[in-house]
Amino acid sequence: MQALSAYDRGLQYGDGLFETIACPDGRPRFLAEHLQRLSEGCRRLHIPWKGAELLREEVGRTAAGVRCIVKVIVTRGETSARGYAPLPTAGPTQIVLRYPWPAVPRDIQATGMCVQLGAMRLAENERLAGIKHLNRLEQVLARAEWSDPAIGESLLSSRSGELISGTMSNVFVVGEKSLRTPRLESCGVHGIMRGVVIREARAAGLDVGELPIAWSEVRHLGEAFLTSSVLGVCPIRELDGRPLTIGPLTRHIQRLLEPLLREPGEQVPRHRGGT
Amino acid sequence: MQALSAYDRGLQYGDGLFETIACPDGRPRFLAEHLQRLSEGCRRLHIPWKGAELLREEVGRTAAGVRCIVKVIVTRGETSARGYAPLPTAGPTQIVLRYPWPAVPRDIQATGMCVQLGAMRLAENERLAGIKHLNRLEQVLARAEWSDPAIGESLLSSRSGELISGTMSNVFVVGEKSLRTPRLESCGVHGIMRGVVIREARAAGLDVGELPIAWSEVRHLGEAFLTSSVLGVCPIRELDGRPLTIGPLTRHIQRLLEPLLREPGEQVPRHRGGT
Repeated sequence: MQALSAYDRGLQYGDGLFETIACPDGRPRFLAEHLQRLSEGCRRLHIPWKGAELLREEVGRTAAGVRCIVKVIVTRGETSARGYAPLPTAGPTQIVLRYPWPAVPRDIQATGMCVQLGAMRLAENERLAGIKHLNRLEQVLARAEWSDPAIGESLLSSRSGELISGTMSNVFVVGEKSLRTPRLESCGVHGIMRGVVIREARAAGLDVGELPIAWSEVRHLGEAFLTSSVLGVCPIRELDGRPLTIGPLTRHIQRLLEPLLREPGEQVPRHRGGT
Repeated sequence: MQALSAYDRGLQYGDGLFETIACPDGRPRFLAEHLQRLSEGCRRLHIPWKGAELLREEVGRTAAGVRCIVKVIVTRGETSARGYAPLPTAGPTQIVLRYPWPAVPRDIQATGMCVQLGAMRLAENERLAGIKHLNRLEQVLARAEWSDPAIGESLLSSRSGELISGTMSNVFVVGEKSLRTPRLESCGVHGIMRGVVIREARAAGLDVGELPIAWSEVRHLGEAFLTSSVLGVCPIRELDGRPLTIGPLTRHIQRLLEPLLREPGEQVPRHRGGT
């Protein structure tokens, strides 16, 4: 069991960042992207972390060929001083943990997920938006809003009334020939899979907008999907009990991503209703 | 050196609360109020903590007659499960740490503090407002805005443009015959000393309002003071380089609090300019 000092600022203030890296075939997926976001987060929080190269190796060793999730935590480090001022510490703390692959239904990408609308509205602060920092009480409270195992995720709005994301995933709204995903300038996390979908969809000539999406629009959505490192591209089958379409564009995105998400030795689920 | 598991949700999500208890004469000051706020925070975050009685004893033992600060951290606890859902844990984690009394000038309550205006605007979420939770990155970033040791604190606004507090203190605006302190419905922390000042001032027949105070008003403030468990009641001498008055009402509040803050064996500073 890994331990850290109670004087670590990661505990005391949530003064740090984390990454959740999917290793579906025992090797870290999109590791370069995870390391880049982590570095960007450290830069934004002024944490002088220089561990990317060593971390790359440690994540690989930790996954060790086992289907798993590797979670990385980097904090500003331990200090005997009290108070918020980010005084020099002994140096950043880096923690690497391995978790079993989660119990997500294997065919969830094919069949889609039942999603609800969350009641909690996310607080907004540009200084913290986009990065995957350790201040996650909002997500804890939003995830505590439901316990029905049939519900897989909850969509959340910002305080100022825009759709932002799920509690642990990003969201894309599917139009006839284009995709929209919420801009994340004042809250939310720039998910790795979100970035991959934007990149791959644009490379395939699709129109993808990072735009404000009004929360009032959410009740009328016809088609949408979630993204996360673990879920990949997961259609929303039902939103607050209302069936959504899983249409050709969603299936097209899934097929675009397939080569990047394919797990050796595993049957890629056949899509229903796609083109 | 106290340690905790890297699987503790206090580290992973900032899923917990803390208290900073002044023990100026080796005994915890306002311990009942601290325990009450901690219990209220646990209730709000649905952390099933029942440790108040034992904690009361442990804080006293930790202070052990030494002039110090005792910091208490309570988290939801350790869990091998990954994800935000607050699944049952092994039980809350409780940590008690002792710090040296801080190097605040002994006569700061008499002479006052130089304070600046912070640039960062606090995010707003009613679900997290008021309690002293472990998600403190905003305070870390706000405290990183200055390094001039002549500046003791920075006043912060909410995103929607109200004066809220300092980075580590609450603030009172002094009028001719009344006090105002920001309402903390959407952000900020209900400071223990803030509560004591409100209670004692009202008991003395003074008018104290918990009200919205526009950030635009801050540049024109004539008289104001800060409160914190460590600072007690500390006048603002200068705000962004502009001298403020330290007038009779501020001195009156200090005298009201004196019996509650008095440290045996220590000379209580004589106030200048009071009535």
